[in-house]
Amino acid sequence: MLVSYHRLLEFTLEVFRRIGCPDEDARTAAAALLSADLRGIDSHGVARLVGYVRLQEAGRANPRPHIRILHETPSTAVVDGDAGLGLVVAPYAMQVAIRKAAACGTGWVSVQNSNHFGIAGYHALAAVARDMIGIAMTNASALVAPTFSIERMLGTNPICVAVPAGQEPPFVADLATTTAANGKLEILQRKNEAAPPGWIQDKSGQPSTNPHELKSGGALLPLGGDRDHGSHKGYALGAVVDIFSAVLSGANYGPWVPPFPAFIPMPTGMPGKGIGHFFGAMRIDAFRPAEEFKTHMDNWIRRFRSATPAPGHDKVLIPGDPEREVEAERLATGIPLVPAVVEDLKALAVKLGVEFPSAG
Amino acid sequence: MLVSYHRLLEFTLEVFRRIGCPDEDARTAAAALLSADLRGIDSHGVARLVGYVRLQEAGRANPRPHIRILHETPSTAVVDGDAGLGLVVAPYAMQVAIRKAAACGTGWVSVQNSNHFGIAGYHALAAVARDMIGIAMTNASALVAPTFSIERMLGTNPICVAVPAGQEPPFVADLATTTAANGKLEILQRKNEAAPPGWIQDKSGQPSTNPHELKSGGALLPLGGDRDHGSHKGYALGAVVDIFSAVLSGANYGPWVPPFPAFIPMPTGMPGKGIGHFFGAMRIDAFRPAEEFKTHMDNWIRRFRSATPAPGHDKVLIPGDPEREVEAERLATGIPLVPAVVEDLKALAVKLGVEFPSAG
Repeated sequence: MLVSYHRLLEFTLEVFRRIGCPDEDARTAAAALLSADLRGIDSHGVARLVGYVRLQEAGRANPRPHIRILHETPSTAVVDGDAGLGLVVAPYAMQVAIRKAAACGTGWVSVQNSNHFGIAGYHALAAVARDMIGIAMTNASALVAPTFSIERMLGTNPICVAVPAGQEPPFVADLATTTAANGKLEILQRKNEAAPPGWIQDKSGQPSTNPHELKSGGALLPLGGDRDHGSHKGYALGAVVDIFSAVLSGANYGPWVPPFPAFIPMPTGMPGKGIGHFFGAMRIDAFRPAEEFKTHMDNWIRRFRSATPAPGHDKVLIPGDPEREVEAERLATGIPLVPAVVEDLKALAVKLGVEFPSAG
Repeated sequence: MLVSYHRLLEFTLEVFRRIGCPDEDARTAAAALLSADLRGIDSHGVARLVGYVRLQEAGRANPRPHIRILHETPSTAVVDGDAGLGLVVAPYAMQVAIRKAAACGTGWVSVQNSNHFGIAGYHALAAVARDMIGIAMTNASALVAPTFSIERMLGTNPICVAVPAGQEPPFVADLATTTAANGKLEILQRKNEAAPPGWIQDKSGQPSTNPHELKSGGALLPLGGDRDHGSHKGYALGAVVDIFSAVLSGANYGPWVPPFPAFIPMPTGMPGKGIGHFFGAMRIDAFRPAEEFKTHMDNWIRRFRSATPAPGHDKVLIPGDPEREVEAERLATGIPLVPAVVEDLKALAVKLGVEFPSAG
């Protein structure tokens, strides 16, 4: 089923209103959530709307949070999300980073007491329109085994860096610090197809291609896959995300990060509050004139795009190209929803008394 | 041959003096260079001393640079290294970042017109003693093919993040953004042993295990190895390092970064000056009280160190553990030098009239 972005946005907005979000927060959350569907990261978009509603029903997400700055310096802040939806807390925190960058060159904000924030790319891109480099990262509940571990200790902990260019579109590196994002594994689970070696291990730490392995104690692997291929680097990057997002802010870290599905019990002995995020904004002209920088970014992008492609490939991509192509297409033709998601959303629509949009 | 760290340091210091470095710069450079040998990253240490001397002889490294700040804001600066040794320029720039962090919470410094800086870890660690998180990265000449490319466009572009802890030693993530650092490939070249699949490709973009492939147009692969295993993420990370280090500062980027070996001709059409670095320092107490943070870092480290290890492995490592163990051992027993390096250094000693240290 294909639904236009604008109809799906109206629906999502109304759902957030019905669970008690103030109108402005509902708008913020709906735009952040659907940016995932627009950019083709279907696992993190409207497919999770039911999950966000369940978090609110379980009392784990606060629909009317009092988000505030706990501590700050000219270039930093720690934000308390007051258990709000990350979809609302993250845009607030990113604006704090942008304000600080406007005033003193850069702004860096670590966030405690939040929930899942959708896709990192949406938040990082907020800086780009202001001629700033935007950075966003978040921790998440533990699905990933560090190198040599059979225990799941880290989330897929994504990092996004978005950089403005001139005539070229922005450079957007948006990556989970695992070999493959969990969303890609979910696609294989639905199709019951084997995962490539290097994505997952079983509960005894042996390589596995069974996409259902996580249900029986297996784990996702850090970017690199195994020690010979640099998994200790993916582990280190995921750890940096965890430390910046949670140890700096006072959120939960490592195996103590609360799970997204509201039916999974909370970890015991949690050392902090909620999940954590980290945001950065760097004003380009805090380093060199913005126009000069953008001319060189255009040159960078064009040179990389014209690198000699390997046989069987048309061209070398710039980080952000694939998502932007999907976004253009989906804005024009609509967002595809798989039957399981349509079913979930229709049930949610009935429960909350919201009209589910028709196709087209 | 095993040489004590202190004898090797005296020798290195004297070499830098003889090529014209002022005494203080020679001390700075020698300590930075030998930190690689201490930490077991033999490819980046004294084995490269001859290379640094050749850069100076070729007029590409300035032994008496006038390093200066070109532009700054309260939290940022661009530094012109005046073609100095990166081993001298980088510590200067890192101190600028630390000073800015002391004043306004964080400091971020992009550097143009520099040369190779040794290992990123040494520079990032300078912040840790000040209760700051240290960040260091650098671009380097192109050895790495982006995903779908057969052209080498990026250096191995390392990133280091060093984080202070309390009773535990610091967390130090120090990683090339490739599957394997070039130094690891050089070890296989010397032994004439095959590289694991996923490290390199041949000149037509086919996977290869021939460690000599780079000499005939092949390339190192970004962390991940191939598209199925996330090489687009390693490529994106290497690209971020390139942009932060060079597009922000006005250094050369992508395929235009000058090569380390002085006998390789410079790229044509260079868009900037020298190679670029990027440094960051974040004061812990710009986010939360330093003692509180360190208590949680200790908790983080201990929890990860006690993660259930996979069969065949003793324990899960914390980023920084392996290098610190090597450092303790080498400070006690000396730095091992392979015959080829001893030969090179003895020839250098004769040429410059410096006494080469005896073993022990």
